[in-house]
Amino acid sequence: MPEVWSAPVRFVECDQQGVAFNAHYLTWADEAVNAWWAAAGLPFGSLAAWGLEYYVKATALDWVSSARYGETVAVDVEPAALGRTSLTLVFTVRVADRVCCTIRTTYVATADGRPSPWPDEVRALISAG
Amino acid sequence: MPEVWSAPVRFVECDQQGVAFNAHYLTWADEAVNAWWAAAGLPFGSLAAWGLEYYVKATALDWVSSARYGETVAVDVEPAALGRTSLTLVFTVRVADRVCCTIRTTYVATADGRPSPWPDEVRALISAG
Amino acid sequence: MPEVWSAPVRFVECDQQGVAFNAHYLTWADEAVNAWWAAAGLPFGSLAAWGLEYYVKATALDWVSSARYGETVAVDVEPAALGRTSLTLVFTVRVADRVCCTIRTTYVATADGRPSPWPDEVRALISAG
Amino acid sequence: MPEVWSAPVRFVECDQQGVAFNAHYLTWADEAVNAWWAAAGLPFGSLAAWGLEYYVKATALDWVSSARYGETVAVDVEPAALGRTSLTLVFTVRVADRVCCTIRTTYVATADGRPSPWPDEVRALISAG
Repeated sequence: MPEVWSAPVRFVECDQQGVAFNAHYLTWADEAVNAWWAAAGLPFGSLAAWGLEYYVKATALDWVSSARYGETVAVDVEPAALGRTSLTLVFTVRVADRVCCTIRTTYVATADGRPSPWPDEVRALISAG
Repeated sequence: MPEVWSAPVRFVECDQQGVAFNAHYLTWADEAVNAWWAAAGLPFGSLAAWGLEYYVKATALDWVSSARYGETVAVDVEPAALGRTSLTLVFTVRVADRVCCTIRTTYVATADGRPSPWPDEVRALISAG
Repeated sequence: MPEVWSAPVRFVECDQQGVAFNAHYLTWADEAVNAWWAAAGLPFGSLAAWGLEYYVKATALDWVSSARYGETVAVDVEPAALGRTSLTLVFTVRVADRVCCTIRTTYVATADGRPSPWPDEVRALISAG
Repeated sequence: MPEVWSAPVRFVECDQQGVAFNAHYLTWADEAVNAWWAAAGLPFGSLAAWGLEYYVKATALDWVSSARYGETVAVDVEPAALGRTSLTLVFTVRVADRVCCTIRTTYVATADGRPSPWPDEVRALISAG
């Protein structure tokens, strides 16, 4: 899956050393996942057609370098596991060729607030995504 | 370790369902860790006396419920592991007695940009913290 | 009107000089206005009983000093003008006795997306607020 | 002056109605002003060569429409007044041809914390900007 989202690091996102705050990596991944769903043919809000929403169950971030003010971060998304009601995506946050952070996030599909299987049509789109 | 940080969920922190965005849990943990260091006798900036800084190496978040607008989140901090150059803390984000999220974060001490052992005096304060 | 909202300045709210970013003053005022409405007897969402919402038409901020990391900001709210469909509030953001910023904001009541008069009951609560 | 900054509205920037929070307009203007200085030949940090910094003295925002999730905001910058120690810029935040917000901000140049005249070389770059 190619890069799905990119943006210059904002001044307001940086700490007293000019380094982006850790929390913003989750914001960037959140923007990237919306772009990824849209690229897979499921734009924001479209899961409602199946009575579905999804939420984040768990996320793990590992940093290897820092993004700084003046740099542009890019985010790749790769599906890592597709369960009956869950989906795990791996995000790679880079500045050019340098990796800053790897993020592994597990989402759960829900209907009426309870875990619910991905419909076949959605599974097909995710698998092709 | 008792609760070290607490705040009402802000309107600006909530999404279209009134639920706090995931990224803000890292912001809350970041505020809590600064309070935890201060309570341990090492207020913000004091590690500079040993020529030390620290950075976040990895963090993992597991959600069991959501914090919503109108609720107040409280954060507890517990040391989980103290290595030669690393420190792992576990944060519990709650709304009253209901747990929302557990966060496990590993920090690394650095001097001149390279991992550096915690000095004995700092180890003693962390262990008592 | 006494202070309606207060919070320690967050690390994530501060720039490379340890000074709070200007945009966060609007966030603080937004929290304060929700507290002010609640204190006036109109908690968040209660205007829906009259089919009303409100939006911000204009806001002007004047800074006289900076809030910094380690300090606690407090916000006072004073009604300055109550029009047929509008309401102007003045917020004072302070650190202890030192004023940091004065914010003057005009809100407009709307029903179905168009300006709509404040109902008498709401006017009475605002005037007493 | 052409558009100096543009970005899709982020999901995390939107409230429960899908409308961008007011405070983020100041964040966008802050990104735009850094781009404007750079385009004028004075990239971030370059005023330090004259021993100068600048701070925001006052800013006034007037909204005529809302930016929403799924839309892209663009910001234009026009110098409106250049005083001995001050500079007033007018920002227009648009979604395509629709104006959302006009922001008028006055900056003050400082040296050692006190207002200080813009050097001739800086005045020339600002005037041409």
